[in-house]
Amino acid sequence: MEIFKQVPLYRYLALCNESGLKRTVLDCGAGGDSPPLSLFASYGYTTSGIELNIEQIQQANQFAEKRKQKLNIQQGDMRNLPLNDESFSFVYSYNSIFHMKKEDVKKALNEMKRVLQPHGLMFVNFLTLKDFRVGEGVDLGNNQYEQIEDDEPVIHSYYDYNEADLLFDELKLIYKEERVVERIYEGKKIRQGFIDYTQLSQLEIGK
Amino acid sequence: MEIFKQVPLYRYLALCNESGLKRTVLDCGAGGDSPPLSLFASYGYTTSGIELNIEQIQQANQFAEKRKQKLNIQQGDMRNLPLNDESFSFVYSYNSIFHMKKEDVKKALNEMKRVLQPHGLMFVNFLTLKDFRVGEGVDLGNNQYEQIEDDEPVIHSYYDYNEADLLFDELKLIYKEERVVERIYEGKKIRQGFIDYTQLSQLEIGK
Repeated sequence: MEIFKQVPLYRYLALCNESGLKRTVLDCGAGGDSPPLSLFASYGYTTSGIELNIEQIQQANQFAEKRKQKLNIQQGDMRNLPLNDESFSFVYSYNSIFHMKKEDVKKALNEMKRVLQPHGLMFVNFLTLKDFRVGEGVDLGNNQYEQIEDDEPVIHSYYDYNEADLLFDELKLIYKEERVVERIYEGKKIRQGFIDYTQLSQLEIGK
Repeated sequence: MEIFKQVPLYRYLALCNESGLKRTVLDCGAGGDSPPLSLFASYGYTTSGIELNIEQIQQANQFAEKRKQKLNIQQGDMRNLPLNDESFSFVYSYNSIFHMKKEDVKKALNEMKRVLQPHGLMFVNFLTLKDFRVGEGVDLGNNQYEQIEDDEPVIHSYYDYNEADLLFDELKLIYKEERVVERIYEGKKIRQGFIDYTQLSQLEIGK
């Protein structure tokens, strides 16, 4: 099996495996050429995904077909999930949610909480103010920028170390990891900043 | 296959796989009840390990036997590796090297460089000054402390963000990741600080 480049999800997967809950998982922003739902599928999870971009759904499906997997990714908007309350043991969004303005991130997180079962585990990560692209592009205020990626305008929202804590108020913190990465990208040294949260849903709250 | 808790090694393993080099790997500090050499063995690597502690070698061997693997861990001191020059494509040390004083860390790193082949990849991680245990225990100076772990005195050396860069002078930086982790450990919230380096050996230098 290949190693997935979305490395923090290995820790999340280990926690999901250990929880003993039914193996049902939802990925919000599930498309792309190396879909991490495939990793979950290899561990016996029933997978579902939501993705806005049709092309990225097709890429993910191609990847899955080669491995004889069905990932069950549907087109949709994570701010308005076409899914029932408390229908997944595990809900995550990796390198995706910060491509919206902060008010939309909040909406998406509320939807992810809604479809997560009590005692379920959620993983979400954010960009931080330590990222080298903070300040680049059209300033939308409150550390939100419209930046160019592959010739397309894309929103990036950047968070302070404790800023996103508030979004998880009713949940219990399991693991919070801030990461600052230095690496060579297209011949130049870049610095990226991320913050990853794993949170536990508690019983009958936030409903 | 189980998920290994030494999550940053997944990224290192992906880079090793992509390099196309012969799959020979050395782990310095290879023992314990969940030896990551087992992960490399699953991907077809010929593994070797050095470990000071006999009990930890036995734990690793028990783990490997259950999986019908032979990890080839020998007792030894990473400051004086009983191994030939340039004999491994990949050499790493995970959550181990900082259990020595900084002058010994330097010796161990020189040994790791000596046994690494040109174009080979090295992974080493360190504790940082952001760790919650900085300042605890017997102060040995220069952010080195003798601390108690499982009722035994253990050295921990802590590094500033750029401090360990100097140890890799002749190598080329591929990936540097600083991580600050908050999690619940034995009922209390703790904060840990790590910095992980993946470095590429270059040709005929540092010899």
